[in-house]
Amino acid sequence: MIIGRVIGTVVSTHKHAKFEGAKLLLVQPVTLDDQPKGPALLAVDGVGAGIYEKVLLVIEGRAAAEILGRKGAPVDAAIVGIIDAIDVDPALVA
Amino acid sequence: MIIGRVIGTVVSTHKHAKFEGAKLLLVQPVTLDDQPKGPALLAVDGVGAGIYEKVLLVIEGRAAAEILGRKGAPVDAAIVGIIDAIDVDPALVA
Amino acid sequence: MIIGRVIGTVVSTHKHAKFEGAKLLLVQPVTLDDQPKGPALLAVDGVGAGIYEKVLLVIEGRAAAEILGRKGAPVDAAIVGIIDAIDVDPALVA
Amino acid sequence: MIIGRVIGTVVSTHKHAKFEGAKLLLVQPVTLDDQPKGPALLAVDGVGAGIYEKVLLVIEGRAAAEILGRKGAPVDAAIVGIIDAIDVDPALVA
Amino acid sequence: MIIGRVIGTVVSTHKHAKFEGAKLLLVQPVTLDDQPKGPALLAVDGVGAGIYEKVLLVIEGRAAAEILGRKGAPVDAAIVGIIDAIDVDPALVA
Repeated sequence: MIIGRVIGTVVSTHKHAKFEGAKLLLVQPVTLDDQPKGPALLAVDGVGAGIYEKVLLVIEGRAAAEILGRKGAPVDAAIVGIIDAIDVDPALVA
Repeated sequence: MIIGRVIGTVVSTHKHAKFEGAKLLLVQPVTLDDQPKGPALLAVDGVGAGIYEKVLLVIEGRAAAEILGRKGAPVDAAIVGIIDAIDVDPALVA
Repeated sequence: MIIGRVIGTVVSTHKHAKFEGAKLLLVQPVTLDDQPKGPALLAVDGVGAGIYEKVLLVIEGRAAAEILGRKGAPVDAAIVGIIDAIDVDPALVA
Repeated sequence: MIIGRVIGTVVSTHKHAKFEGAKLLLVQPVTLDDQPKGPALLAVDGVGAGIYEKVLLVIEGRAAAEILGRKGAPVDAAIVGIIDAIDVDPALVA
Repeated sequence: MIIGRVIGTVVSTHKHAKFEGAKLLLVQPVTLDDQPKGPALLAVDGVGAGIYEKVLLVIEGRAAAEILGRKGAPVDAAIVGIIDAIDVDPALVA
């Protein structure tokens, strides 16, 4: 799992039928000291996350489909938790 | 899921039998401010997307096979939606 | 799926029993303007591709095993088509 | 599998129900000569690892869910062993 | 599949029960002209490979578990063959 921040949403009125019910949020991966890093991606929201919240992101299709509650859903990333705090020894980080 | 733009097509008359019926589109991943980024890839079209359209791309085999409607199809990426709008706070992007 | 060019073969007389019957080809991923890019990889040939041919490559274990025709085969990439032509708007490419 | 070092923990009180029971540790991938490399990630702890310990990390959803003991768990990385020693010929390393 | 060279082993006395019986080797990915490239990784040995041998590596959990002979094993990479020779046209390589 990686750490990200919710930065927005995407509107898609014309989508595949199997995609119905998927609430998507735009998430920016962030480093341990909260800097954006790498490309933003879209994830299924499994916890009711809001804009600016720091979240726990799982990146794998099977797991994301579990969050959506539909085994065969065509998704590949999901928000599985809202992060309250990160406890880390900075001397050990790259 | 990531954001891409449909930029073309590929012609392949000699392909594997299990690949029949897969309409493939060439998709260029783009950044939030619409710049091409990284290598283009081929995805199964699940929504009838057209050239130049901005689309929602799922990159995972199981999910792509779901879009094609055949569980065992040998595919690894699919277009699952056409993007109408992206709503994002630019201050939060890498 | 990505685009590659068949550049060679690999000889492996001592291999795992579950690997029997897998014809492997060495494939170099190429850009849309046909330049080699990134490391070459080995893929199961599902279409009888020859050296120098431009091919359609699927990179995922489940899909590659489908091409081999054995669900549990320990493979992770496969050639699923021979590319005749690529039709793309160059102004849209990274 | 890759080699990492446990560097911390993450607190997430609001998480998806299917995520219950998953003890997560923050792991920093390290090189063979023990230097941090690449972004830290969160993994399910399957062995009772402690801070500073060098661990064996498996990065794949199905495997991580096996460690958690729940097939459908929405996880994508797990700690599967604590590393006592690495025996390597340094002349062969990149 | 990619090409690697076996460069060592890892000792882990405290590991997850589902990991029993997995013989792990440290493998360094190499280029076609035999130069180390990218980070070393740990793979399940399915062919009895020895140090210095050039091997065929499959990187995917399901496939690696097949090599181990246990469907639910928490592994993500495996050695599936020993490479005798690589036959490649150097003009075509990146």
